[in-house]
Amino acid sequence: MFKAEIKSETLKGLVGVISTIVDEVKLNVAPGGIKLRAMDQAHVAMIELEAGAKAFESYSADEMELGVDLDKIKAVIKLSVAGDLISMELDEAKRRLVFKVGSITRSMSLIEPSGIAVPKELNLSLQSSADLEVDLLQKGTRASESISDYVLVTLGEDSFEMACVGDTDEARMRVDKKDLAGFEVPEPAGNLYPLDYFANVVKAIPSGTLVRLEEDEGRPLRIRFSMANGEVKVAYILAPRIEND
Amino acid sequence: MFKAEIKSETLKGLVGVISTIVDEVKLNVAPGGIKLRAMDQAHVAMIELEAGAKAFESYSADEMELGVDLDKIKAVIKLSVAGDLISMELDEAKRRLVFKVGSITRSMSLIEPSGIAVPKELNLSLQSSADLEVDLLQKGTRASESISDYVLVTLGEDSFEMACVGDTDEARMRVDKKDLAGFEVPEPAGNLYPLDYFANVVKAIPSGTLVRLEEDEGRPLRIRFSMANGEVKVAYILAPRIEND
Amino acid sequence: MFKAEIKSETLKGLVGVISTIVDEVKLNVAPGGIKLRAMDQAHVAMIELEAGAKAFESYSADEMELGVDLDKIKAVIKLSVAGDLISMELDEAKRRLVFKVGSITRSMSLIEPSGIAVPKELNLSLQSSADLEVDLLQKGTRASESISDYVLVTLGEDSFEMACVGDTDEARMRVDKKDLAGFEVPEPAGNLYPLDYFANVVKAIPSGTLVRLEEDEGRPLRIRFSMANGEVKVAYILAPRIEND
Repeated sequence: MFKAEIKSETLKGLVGVISTIVDEVKLNVAPGGIKLRAMDQAHVAMIELEAGAKAFESYSADEMELGVDLDKIKAVIKLSVAGDLISMELDEAKRRLVFKVGSITRSMSLIEPSGIAVPKELNLSLQSSADLEVDLLQKGTRASESISDYVLVTLGEDSFEMACVGDTDEARMRVDKKDLAGFEVPEPAGNLYPLDYFANVVKAIPSGTLVRLEEDEGRPLRIRFSMANGEVKVAYILAPRIEND
Repeated sequence: MFKAEIKSETLKGLVGVISTIVDEVKLNVAPGGIKLRAMDQAHVAMIELEAGAKAFESYSADEMELGVDLDKIKAVIKLSVAGDLISMELDEAKRRLVFKVGSITRSMSLIEPSGIAVPKELNLSLQSSADLEVDLLQKGTRASESISDYVLVTLGEDSFEMACVGDTDEARMRVDKKDLAGFEVPEPAGNLYPLDYFANVVKAIPSGTLVRLEEDEGRPLRIRFSMANGEVKVAYILAPRIEND
Repeated sequence: MFKAEIKSETLKGLVGVISTIVDEVKLNVAPGGIKLRAMDQAHVAMIELEAGAKAFESYSADEMELGVDLDKIKAVIKLSVAGDLISMELDEAKRRLVFKVGSITRSMSLIEPSGIAVPKELNLSLQSSADLEVDLLQKGTRASESISDYVLVTLGEDSFEMACVGDTDEARMRVDKKDLAGFEVPEPAGNLYPLDYFANVVKAIPSGTLVRLEEDEGRPLRIRFSMANGEVKVAYILAPRIEND
């Protein structure tokens, strides 16, 4: 049994971020909420997500795995507006997930979960971090467009910086630590990350969301944020560029 | 002689609906107003329209037939905004229709009316009907996208329903009769109609318009509505899918 | 040395108009301001522009030539909103122009100015003119779409007119001299100009701008306007169609 109701905007935020790296995802459903982990095909980015039962307006579920097609859920979200409640229920006989928005019912076949690869848990411990509105990251990626394929993300001694350096042109954004919501940098670190992945995920995070960006020298970047009053926790992890020379 | 003025938004509504099935149309102009009938090339949909002289801000005309290219009228409408008055006048010497919007004059050649096929009048008598805002139909068709090519439209015992059933997924919308502006169903009926035609016409009807949807088992669907305080009457008729099995 | 600050909307207006005819432009920078002249590759249109030091929020410069890529400046403008201040500074060592908008820095390589062709100064003296909001010209060009490739621009005895005459259809706009901000026509004149050039430039001039349109029989059209409280002066010149017959 699985039955839940969620706010349209919460579902939109979740699906938006997850679908920057996969089209199909396996949900681990349990009485206490839903968890998922997914990695993109090139093994460059990974997402870990937990939505506690309180992230939903109502929630009741047994332990199970559900394989879902995110494009189909996006089609349902498009039928709603912010503020709408979207209900979901498993039709066990037909192996379908049934969504309702107002007078509309849309049911979709599930994907066999065993066919969906799930990455191992990543116990990533990073020591440097900055807290900031995702809007700043969105601005920094817009500034980097068509200059280079990589963005240098730096937690410096007293600032957060993004830089995109091409052969002839370059773009930089520097935000002083006093203008950040949080800043904890025991040791400065800066790494190159693929700009397309970085841009896609920061565009997908709802404007105004406070995110924690973490990195250490030579290690993956992690962007963490929560939604639905902290009841949904998301971590997005991005591998650094490996320098060959 | 033909000379008339009409509100931009009224003309836009009319042309929008007619152009879902034809590009060129023959207008039967008379002192009392304009009538037209048109059928799409595949003979699946038909429109009947009457605009009485009072639908216009001013109107004076002799009996005549005018063949017009709807794309050219759309180009004129784009030069106006809601609230603008569009004037039309026949230039008999040049066989052109001359439109004016503010300081702009745009004249277009007429099409020889004898070259435009006009369907016979359809005296369609249907017994079941529901009255509802077209917005509900627009919502139901949005929900049906990319599931199947046909939509099942049902006037049930106590509800209006639209359903689109694909191999793996389905979409449904159900509106209880108490939530409809009118409901008269002596005998429940449900038929499959081509989704593209249905979607195109309901998208073309201005949001907020009250429409009457009529159908009987195995018969065409008719959508009727009026504009310009009831002075324009439109009927759109759509053939049901013929089941082969 | 070159260092200046300018309002985002002023820079946007300038670059928008210039880029209707060239992608790269040579700026003649001097202590008193910036001048440029550019002609399109087909030698049909030309622009002359002067931005005095007071057009900038701050300005200080030595005499020099700078070759700039307008697409790169457009990318900077996109990072700003109306009201933002954009600063520019020459990095002489790297031969780069460095733009700043808030926390963003974007630096771009310069183009060797000797590689950019600059047309001779055109001392064009025209006697007939009309002063009007560019919005009227924008309206007239919208009305002319898909009728013909040329627009007839006429300064008549007591009106300004635009006409586009095709084989079957035509569009006209007539504005009486009493509805114009200025009108000085010692001798009526009307010439055909290429519609695409004309449409592109009038679309690029910010809505609400008062322009002076000048022409004489058989001669180029000139559109002049100013921005930034008169501190920026722009002249756009368009060659008439040469009639062969």
